[in-house]
Amino acid sequence: MEKITSRKNEHIRHIRLLCSDSQYRRENGLFICDGMKLLKEALNFGAEIQSVLWNNQAQEIEGLDGIKQFVAPTELFDYASPMKNSPGPVFSVKIPCEESSVKLRNAIVLENLQDPGNVGTVIRTANAFNIDAVILTGSCADIYNPKTVRATMGAVFRQKIIVKNLNELKLFLKENDLPLFGAALSERAVDMRSVALKKAAVAVGSEGRGLSREILDICEREIIIPMNPDSESLNAAVAASVLMWEMSR
Amino acid sequence: MEKITSRKNEHIRHIRLLCSDSQYRRENGLFICDGMKLLKEALNFGAEIQSVLWNNQAQEIEGLDGIKQFVAPTELFDYASPMKNSPGPVFSVKIPCEESSVKLRNAIVLENLQDPGNVGTVIRTANAFNIDAVILTGSCADIYNPKTVRATMGAVFRQKIIVKNLNELKLFLKENDLPLFGAALSERAVDMRSVALKKAAVAVGSEGRGLSREILDICEREIIIPMNPDSESLNAAVAASVLMWEMSR
Repeated sequence: MEKITSRKNEHIRHIRLLCSDSQYRRENGLFICDGMKLLKEALNFGAEIQSVLWNNQAQEIEGLDGIKQFVAPTELFDYASPMKNSPGPVFSVKIPCEESSVKLRNAIVLENLQDPGNVGTVIRTANAFNIDAVILTGSCADIYNPKTVRATMGAVFRQKIIVKNLNELKLFLKENDLPLFGAALSERAVDMRSVALKKAAVAVGSEGRGLSREILDICEREIIIPMNPDSESLNAAVAASVLMWEMSR
Repeated sequence: MEKITSRKNEHIRHIRLLCSDSQYRRENGLFICDGMKLLKEALNFGAEIQSVLWNNQAQEIEGLDGIKQFVAPTELFDYASPMKNSPGPVFSVKIPCEESSVKLRNAIVLENLQDPGNVGTVIRTANAFNIDAVILTGSCADIYNPKTVRATMGAVFRQKIIVKNLNELKLFLKENDLPLFGAALSERAVDMRSVALKKAAVAVGSEGRGLSREILDICEREIIIPMNPDSESLNAAVAASVLMWEMSR
């Protein structure tokens, strides 16, 4: 166990960059998680943990043999941690390889969902409702932003998550024989219960602007969650969650 | 239109206290909202606006005649505003009287939901899914915390929201002939689709601890949203939203 005492320590710098810089995360193939609950989930689901930084005092956890561990005094730990006043630990995990040739039964597609809490919550719900994949397109929050990871509550280790641009998405859906339905508040949109959602992909856009014209153009139908006409819309993670519930219902 | 130039101005102090102090909000019967979208919703749904503070430059908005308006330079506006870098305006609204004698057809009950974003999101979804009331019990986030208000996206002006302690809740549900179902992950819990949710109240607890023993004791049944056994739980606002969708489905 290495004791870290300086802000200039190489590992502290490494963790801070992994927290803040998505480019650095990709280059290193690593992301940062925070807290004992996530550590246990990571061990439980076979995530490849690369290092663990403890706050002030290391704890004995089964499964960490051979993994590089560090301990830092609280002030220094706080400096490295993505969370304020976290009890820790902070640990780094290998970004999994996203490709696989298994055909998907269904998927939720998020376009331009920029809030990491919403993206993480959708990943968590997708996992709970047995959705085969979460596909991110456009400019969504980074999956491996610590806030996204936190909101997944461990589902990031269990859920297939794929990033595709629009052309790749189109091809991918075709390969998987999945029709795409777009959640929209338009006049054209039909009640989500009137289409076959069991073997389908459903796209949800940002709350402010909805889905782009480009993605709507590749949708088979526009669908709507029936709601009180006074309400303009739902929170994006809520809309996606209700849609995923209907897909799995 | 009064121009404010000092942090010591009485109205600036008043707004800051309304943002930060729930006791002060109750004493004054007022809460703070932020942004043009909420201002339009407030006007649209007949909320009683008491004052408007503009960031740097006032705008002409129909419906504000006779309402006290202020303008402050951006630096001072930021000091008063509950949001960082908000374009504004910030405005104060009268807390509505919550009592009414109309019988409820259904309700969602939140116990100890402390995150204002989650509470606000539930209020927004309840309004969208025509749930008659959101009832807060235990130590929930304050309805009139600016973060809660913001997450409601205007539903705070349209949705009946009631605060009750457990004894009051019990009596209230009896008066409204509403059975209470408790969302729980216990062995006893039955699939939510197997109980009659159309004319019922459903309780959702905090993510960490679930519903208290005390509220479970007054529940007719414990119900569960069927999910992948690897997932321990859903985000509380997502769980409440899926339950409300089933209540209104």
